Amino acid sequence: MTAPILATSRRLRRTPFSAGVERAGVKAYTIYNHMLLPCVFDSMEADYHHLKRHVQVWDVACERQVELRGPDAGRLMQMLTPRDLRGMLPGQCYYVPIVDETGGMLNDPVAVKLAEDRFWISIADSDLLYWVKAVAHGWRLDVLVDEPDVSPLAVQGPKADALMARVFGAGVTTLRFFRFGWFDFQGRDMLIARSGYSRQGGFEIYLEGGDMGMALWEALMAAGADLEVRAGCPNLIERIEGGLLSYGNDMTRENTPHECGLGRFCNTHSAIGCIGRDALLRVAQEGPVRQIRSMAIEGGPVPACEDLWPVMAGSERVGRISSAVWSPDFQTNVAIGMVRMTHWTPGTELTVEAPDGARRAVVRGEFFIQ
Amino acid sequence: MTAPILATSRRLRRTPFSAGVERAGVKAYTIYNHMLLPCVFDSMEADYHHLKRHVQVWDVACERQVELRGPDAGRLMQMLTPRDLRGMLPGQCYYVPIVDETGGMLNDPVAVKLAEDRFWISIADSDLLYWVKAVAHGWRLDVLVDEPDVSPLAVQGPKADALMARVFGAGVTTLRFFRFGWFDFQGRDMLIARSGYSRQGGFEIYLEGGDMGMALWEALMAAGADLEVRAGCPNLIERIEGGLLSYGNDMTRENTPHECGLGRFCNTHSAIGCIGRDALLRVAQEGPVRQIRSMAIEGGPVPACEDLWPVMAGSERVGRISSAVWSPDFQTNVAIGMVRMTHWTPGTELTVEAPDGARRAVVRGEFFIQ
Repeated sequence: MTAPILATSRRLRRTPFSAGVERAGVKAYTIYNHMLLPCVFDSMEADYHHLKRHVQVWDVACERQVELRGPDAGRLMQMLTPRDLRGMLPGQCYYVPIVDETGGMLNDPVAVKLAEDRFWISIADSDLLYWVKAVAHGWRLDVLVDEPDVSPLAVQGPKADALMARVFGAGVTTLRFFRFGWFDFQGRDMLIARSGYSRQGGFEIYLEGGDMGMALWEALMAAGADLEVRAGCPNLIERIEGGLLSYGNDMTRENTPHECGLGRFCNTHSAIGCIGRDALLRVAQEGPVRQIRSMAIEGGPVPACEDLWPVMAGSERVGRISSAVWSPDFQTNVAIGMVRMTHWTPGTELTVEAPDGARRAVVRGEFFIQ
Repeated sequence: MTAPILATSRRLRRTPFSAGVERAGVKAYTIYNHMLLPCVFDSMEADYHHLKRHVQVWDVACERQVELRGPDAGRLMQMLTPRDLRGMLPGQCYYVPIVDETGGMLNDPVAVKLAEDRFWISIADSDLLYWVKAVAHGWRLDVLVDEPDVSPLAVQGPKADALMARVFGAGVTTLRFFRFGWFDFQGRDMLIARSGYSRQGGFEIYLEGGDMGMALWEALMAAGADLEVRAGCPNLIERIEGGLLSYGNDMTRENTPHECGLGRFCNTHSAIGCIGRDALLRVAQEGPVRQIRSMAIEGGPVPACEDLWPVMAGSERVGRISSAVWSPDFQTNVAIGMVRMTHWTPGTELTVEAPDGARRAVVRGEFFIQ
């Protein structure tokens, strides 16, 4: 089958940066939170090599925000996640698994604490707003919950600090990981965090007000010409190598945070009031029986992973692959799987039933990080 | 810009009918409830003419179900919608606007009443499951809420009755509009309703268990060869002509049901317990100040409507177009807009700021129905 065309409509929302993305020659999109997310510019491999060497500007406006504002904002934020938020200060970002009453993953966003009574939740691909609004309503909390006009733009890659300093001043490079500050751009304050969906380092600019989108885009492109800046996007190869999970791909509501290897973000004893705590206390005690693992799949490049691929030990199904792609740097297929505890020891050899046939695969102790 | 490619992944879920859709030569997809929804097979115009003359089989598995089951299922269902459900009987389908506490539209699904204590909500494009689960949790209702393995397949077009009778027996043709019954297919009971997202008539088969997907697809194709059955999908031209609204395109959380012309589905005085009732009582009393209208836009075929187009009366903005396309049968551009009450009288001439320039447009009293 040839590559399918995406039929556009208002329902698949454009972003404040779409004009720049199109001008840069975007070749493929995915849809994320009902919004366009670029997937390829040059080729996935060329984008990957460039990301690891230079600096890219990413339209990740699809990381929509859920804003909590009001006296009960902090209480609500803690109800949403098993991570203990008592030590979280304004200016910090926390990666927070969000679970339902059974401990099933609803989203794996980054929470941004603007003030004691104000948070943004920078969401992965599910309408978390609906969950949060109904929780606030059902529990009669004194808090406003809404989607503000905020569109993140990421600057990622080893030259990200150099580029950002030129546009926002050297102060931005003093930001520590998962901290944010406010920086001026053409007279408007921008929240900038050291964060982003790659292992190459960089920043996310939370643009308030879509009207400034293209000015921001163009300022970054102009300032970085000699740094070889170009448009980019989350790169499938780089994220699988680095073990960056994708909600909807590697985990769904079927999974607990512990299964996803996110147990370290679950403080089920101290996260008082968290929905799903009872269910997760049990999991935390026993441990999960299956867990996310880095895997290497042998043979030539695998086809696109559009469905779960069974992972077998002989005739017994012991897991599944949820993301897989050929890695030029590691010269093997890198993959994210979930494997039962009987077979999750690093070095275990298993069989993956890929669409083009069975392949040998090896469970790894860590992701592929250079 | 050339048509963008869709990058596939597990997150954009395939359906039990995807193999059939691909074999039929699908040319474009959209994403709907995190799932593939075909958009074009031959061409949008050819698909449209065929739909109006023959019969098509549509993969609308993306109409995911939210199942409510348990003693409080009926109470929860009424909390979700301002439509009075007291008269709803098992075997009936109701179109139900779902609103948040401010009366803003969250979804516009069809509710299917299986039993006094069991409903399916066949949803439009938003994660209504998250809202419903949190409402049930927050109000401590005695009900299970989940997404079952149910994938609707639609059979639409003037020859739908003929085709369905061949596969399910003549009894299926006695179904009245928005009623359902249970019919045997290869030993499995299938819920079949007379419903569907076109004005051409037809049915929706709620397939339980994805494993039977291709058997059902192939049985319909084989039985209808001489009826010129073929794969189809919701058709943009036909739905705009017929005034079938699309959540995310023609309405969002910004809009009340009354603005969307759905006031007749709101019984704010008798729908006791409905979330958002207080907000909607006010709207029901005063009436909305803007409302969905059918519009004709003059000139040649309009470009794809990917954003709201302003509707102007002189220099005053009085509305917006949310869906528009050239209609071969009506030889004009048919459109769905929302217009302020000062300018919504049928026959009012306005200006639409389309991406390719200003165009004259006329407000209509009804949609385009032959």
